[in-house]
Parts: sequence; C-alpha cells; structure tokens
Amino acid sequence: MSEIGQVETQFQTIATPEDPFVFRCGASLAHAELAYETYGELNETRSNAILLFHAFSGSQHAAGYNPEVKGNAFWTPECENGWWNPFIGPGKALDTDRYFIICANYLGGCYGSTGPASVDPATGQRYGSTFPNITVNDIVRSQALLLDALGIVRLLAVVGPSTGGLSCVTFATLYPERVRLVVPLATGVKTTVLNRIILLEQILAIENDPRFQSGEYYESGAPETGLALARMISHKTFVHLDAIERRASKDVVQSGDRFSWYQAHDHVESYMLHQGKKFTDRFDANTYLRICEMWSRYDPVVEAGAEDLATLFGRSAAAGHHYLVFSIDEDYCFYPEEQAALVENLRDAGVPHLFFTVHSEKGHDSFLLEPDLYTPHIQVMLRNACEDPAE
Amino acid sequence: MSEIGQVETQFQTIATPEDPFVFRCGASLAHAELAYETYGELNETRSNAILLFHAFSGSQHAAGYNPEVKGNAFWTPECENGWWNPFIGPGKALDTDRYFIICANYLGGCYGSTGPASVDPATGQRYGSTFPNITVNDIVRSQALLLDALGIVRLLAVVGPSTGGLSCVTFATLYPERVRLVVPLATGVKTTVLNRIILLEQILAIENDPRFQSGEYYESGAPETGLALARMISHKTFVHLDAIERRASKDVVQSGDRFSWYQAHDHVESYMLHQGKKFTDRFDANTYLRICEMWSRYDPVVEAGAEDLATLFGRSAAAGHHYLVFSIDEDYCFYPEEQAALVENLRDAGVPHLFFTVHSEKGHDSFLLEPDLYTPHIQVMLRNACEDPAE
Repeated sequence: MSEIGQVETQFQTIATPEDPFVFRCGASLAHAELAYETYGELNETRSNAILLFHAFSGSQHAAGYNPEVKGNAFWTPECENGWWNPFIGPGKALDTDRYFIICANYLGGCYGSTGPASVDPATGQRYGSTFPNITVNDIVRSQALLLDALGIVRLLAVVGPSTGGLSCVTFATLYPERVRLVVPLATGVKTTVLNRIILLEQILAIENDPRFQSGEYYESGAPETGLALARMISHKTFVHLDAIERRASKDVVQSGDRFSWYQAHDHVESYMLHQGKKFTDRFDANTYLRICEMWSRYDPVVEAGAEDLATLFGRSAAAGHHYLVFSIDEDYCFYPEEQAALVENLRDAGVPHLFFTVHSEKGHDSFLLEPDLYTPHIQVMLRNACEDPAE
Repeated sequence: MSEIGQVETQFQTIATPEDPFVFRCGASLAHAELAYETYGELNETRSNAILLFHAFSGSQHAAGYNPEVKGNAFWTPECENGWWNPFIGPGKALDTDRYFIICANYLGGCYGSTGPASVDPATGQRYGSTFPNITVNDIVRSQALLLDALGIVRLLAVVGPSTGGLSCVTFATLYPERVRLVVPLATGVKTTVLNRIILLEQILAIENDPRFQSGEYYESGAPETGLALARMISHKTFVHLDAIERRASKDVVQSGDRFSWYQAHDHVESYMLHQGKKFTDRFDANTYLRICEMWSRYDPVVEAGAEDLATLFGRSAAAGHHYLVFSIDEDYCFYPEEQAALVENLRDAGVPHLFFTVHSEKGHDSFLLEPDLYTPHIQVMLRNACEDPAE
C-alpha cells in the first residue's frame, strides 16, 4: 500500500540524570527517550522538516510498514501499517520527495517513548502509578528536544490531526520562531464540556476496574474490561454513526458476547464490543488515562504560558505563521464549532489562515481515510511556505 | 409547590398463581403487583381517564407529595415530590378538576411494582437475576390489566414523555380501541444506533462492577460505582451541555473526588460525579439494566404485533386517534429527527396529528421543567378529545 516500504523506529534520549526532563506538574524524569520515525531526506539547509503529531491512540509509526518495535509489548499487527499512509509518500500530501517528516510517540506513550509501562532505571521497576501526569506543554517541549538533537532549528510546518492538533497549536505558540506553517485538522482550541464529560467517563471506566489498582497492574493483569469500555465510549465519537451501522451490518455477530447477565443481541453491539476488546491488546491503560487527563485539562493559553488568547495568537501573527485549518462537517469528536473557535481567534489576532470544511460520511475518522479531501490544499500551502520570502 | 397535597401509592395485583403474567420473552410471574397513583376523580361515565407513562428513572409518583412507599428501600427524599408536579393539578396541563390521571411504576421497577428487588413468594428470596427481561409490550399489557381492575375500558388519552413515550405509542397501537388522544413528548419511534451504543455502555458499566455478580448483590452490596457511571453516561443526554456548565459553576467542588489514581479537578467533573453518586441511593441496578435492555430492543412493530409501520399506524388511523407530538430543539437524548420520523409515519398512515418543536435551553429535561411550553396545546387537545363525536 505504501511506497515508503519498511521502516524502523529510532530512539532519542531527551533526559539524563544531569539534565532531567521536568514536567509542567513539577515532577521530573532522570531518564527518558522518545521513539520516533522519519520519512524523506533532510535537505542541506535543514529547511524542509515537518513535525507531525499523532492522535490519541496513534504512534510514531505514521508511514510505511514496521513489523516490530524492539521490546514493545503493545506492538500488535494492527500497528504495523503507518497510521497516515494515505497522506505520506512520494507525491502525497506530505511528499517524501520534497520534505523530511518526523513523527514521535508522545512522552508517556506506550509505543517506545518512556511511559508508565517503562522500567525506571533507578528502581528496576515499571513506573506505573508513579509516572507523572502529562500535559500538551510536556509533549511539545519533549519533541522540541528531539528537534534540537536532529539539528532542526526551524520547521517548515507542524501538522496535527485530532488530539495531535492540540500539540500542533501549542508548538506554534510556544515556539513561534521554530515554524512557518501550522496545519491543525479536526481539532479544538479549548476543551468543551462534552469533551470533559466523555473523558471523565473513560477515566472512571478504567478506575472502576478492580484490576486497575491505581495503575500497579503490570504483574497482576491489565484492567481490560475497563479499558475496553473506555475505548467503546470514545470510538462512537470517531466514526460516523451511519458508518457504524454499515460496518456492523457486514460483520458476523460474535458468539460469546455474553456477560454475567446481559447477552448482546445485535450487530451494532457486537461491533462496538469488538472495537473495545481488540484495543486492549495494543494499548496501555496507564497511558490511556494520562492522555485523557492531558486532553481534558488542555488550555492553549496555559500550555504556552501566554496571558490570554489574544497574546497567544499574537505570537503567531508576529512570527508570520500561516494556518491551514480543516473541519469535518459531521465530526462528533471535535465538533466543527471547535475549529471555528480556533479560526475566530486567528482572525482576531490577524493571523493569515485558510479554513475549510470537508464534507464526509465518515465522521472524525475522515482525517485518516480520505486523503483526496485534504491533499491539494496541504501541498499548495507547503510549497508556498517554501517560497516564503521570510526564509 | 403542588396543589395536589399528600398522596399515597396504591397497589394492584396483576398476576396470581391461577392467572400468571406471561412476559413476551416467555417467562412468567405467578405473583405480581403494580404500584400506582391517581389524581383527580373518575367521572360517572369513566370517560375522563388519562394514563401517564413515566420516563426511565421515574416512578408512579407523578404529582403531589409522597413521603414514603411502604417498605420501599429506594424511596429517598429526592422521590417525594411528584416528578410532573408542574403539569398536573387544577388548571394545569393534566387538569385534576377535569380528568382522572393514573400513573404506574413499570413492572420490573424498583418503586413498589414487582421487580428484581422484590421477594419471590415461592422461594422467600429476592428475584435478582431470575427476574424476566422486560419489553415495552410487557409494560403496556401490565398497565392494561390495571385499567381493567379500575374499570376503565377506554382512556381519554395516553401521555408519555421520553422513554414513557415508547409505551404511549405502543399502548395506542396495541389497544387502539382503548384510547382517543396520544401524546408522546420528546420520544422516538425506533431506537437509533446512538441510543443502542449509549445503552450498551451503561449496561457494561454495571456488568463490569465486581459487586454486580449477575444481579445477586442484595446481600453483599450493590454495584454502586458501576451504577453511578451508568447514570453519568445517561445524564449528559438529559441536560443541555450549557446548562451543565451553568449548574456546575454554581456548585461547590466536592472534596474527596479522588479515585485510586485520578483526581477530579473542575466543577463539571464534580457535578457529574455528584449526579452519579446521588442516584445510586434511589435506584436498583437490576431494574436499571432491564430498562436499558427494554429501550435498546424497542421496536414498535414487534411490540404491538403488527406487520410493518404502515399497518401499525393504520390501526391508529382506523381507531380515529389524534396525536400531539412534541420535539425539543436541542434534545440530545431523543433527537428531534426521532420525533420527525414518528410524524412521518403518522402522515403516511393518514393519522391526524399536530407536531410542535419547543425551543429550550434546557435540553431533554425541558419536558420536566417548562410547563408553559406544552400546557396550552395539551389542554386544547384534551378538551377537543372530550367533545369528539366518536364518544
């Protein structure tokens, strides 16, 4: 499917005992590394780099085929194909003949970056419940350290779909001099009440599982029923409900969907249960909880240490950023109002931007599945950014 | 608040060993009674009776003040004021100077009608997991037996808000000769994919609680964390999200909202947690599960034993029914499309109807809180039904 071929995850140390990583919450790690991948070639002037932030349950593996990440227990066959394959490669939205694309697993993640399931060298034990709470600010600062290590001072673009869009906007406003083009897709500028309620439901689904044990479950067994319910709660916001019905009607109803009292009856129920169950093999509940909290607490003003939204986006105006903002018309995860709110702030601050609503029957997941809806605008804006006289 | 004053719940036997109640699933009960209340006086011709169906977590106590239901463990202070007080009383939508209003707790309920928490006289034990699955058909047939016992052959009207609307429509189509005016408020004619997904989440929240034990928890302690999460999942659909934010901002953040790992931070979270917790004192998880399943499986054609929607509503046309259908514009529980679908079926079948969308900032709960939006039309339609030459 992908012309990128087989790729390998690389690792970059971003914290040492001499130079620890300090989280916004005050906690610190004396040892930390980020798992990342790159596609395409960095040019001589190091001016063609694009940093891509993955969504909630994504990974560093955005393109190509990657059969294993050394020692990683969560790398299942579902992880092997790059999550943005339709968008990355020669001639695609992020054209590997022109650009050097970097994607890193979140700090606190479970696909190779240091996270709750990692072993703390100081104790020889997994971090578990002691792993710090993460914020978007931490994600962005940790990835800026990766850019430093790669010798990249200024990015051509930051790109982020879904929850990755939160990091994308925070990168641009925390490090305005380090980027030119900002591409948030199907994301928000402020968590809504509905976001926070649905995230709390997911947190409680895991907390209520007796196997969770504050996060100290690596020896005794993961809180799979809780994690599966959490995933079901979120999954319904990713996929258009009509598409769930269509997909479900093609699936065979699974036998064995019987609980202690309840017996599943229809295709939609079996489909949702399957979505929940298959997720538990490939994700760590402790990482899940940290990302839930990170999203729920997201405030772009606080993440970037600004005074208010006007000064926040004033930074983008002063740095000469261009924004390319995409909405999906029937998105139940990040509703179109949320991108509209972002654009309103950009307009108020005088930041040049283009804003599009794509019409899709796929809901939020359109950003993974329908490259034709996004590619032409991304290509044009990237070429324009290359020709920007500011360079 | 109410001019009805203090009322008392009454009980009607609807099953005996000689004449058991047979559920649609095939199971039967040799002993069953319904808890019900009445308001106003039945006239001499027994032609002024209105049957009101309560919503998911409601009870037979629709109006007035009722400090206790004998022997009922779920009757907390929250239950004491009638859930439809603003709509029932002299001069109100259901005018007790003119009409005789009947409201019964669902069979399978937890407020006095025989349900999972009731003691099975055959064993001396609570029914628990052995209590049959219920359907809307069962609710409607059991309440028809109550009407028989009260000597009421034909109702002036059936009224049902929310999930009560499902019973309202099924009553009219299963017993078309027994009613004249049909008033479904903020309800649906067919469960949507979203309904079924959200109901499954609630079922799993309870099933995942280790205290649930297939429903055999009456001695060992109720699955409170699971039931609280289930209630939170549904509560967000009842109240407009802006209203949640407004209400939450007035509440004091509760201390002690700390779980094994997660600590609640904001007013919205505390408000939602409070909604979940306070519910567990007043509701039985086994009843909750049965109503979830009843709603999830609802199909008006099957409930009434019709061939299709055309013949189903053809019964209403032949019986000379009038329908008064209400939508709430920002209802996230039963979306306005669902009432529109009901009305489309009525139109196709040639059933006379009036259809209104009320504009409310309160979301689904408008049907409990804003009598001014509904009362004039209900009053006029009830008076018209009284003067109907068919009588």
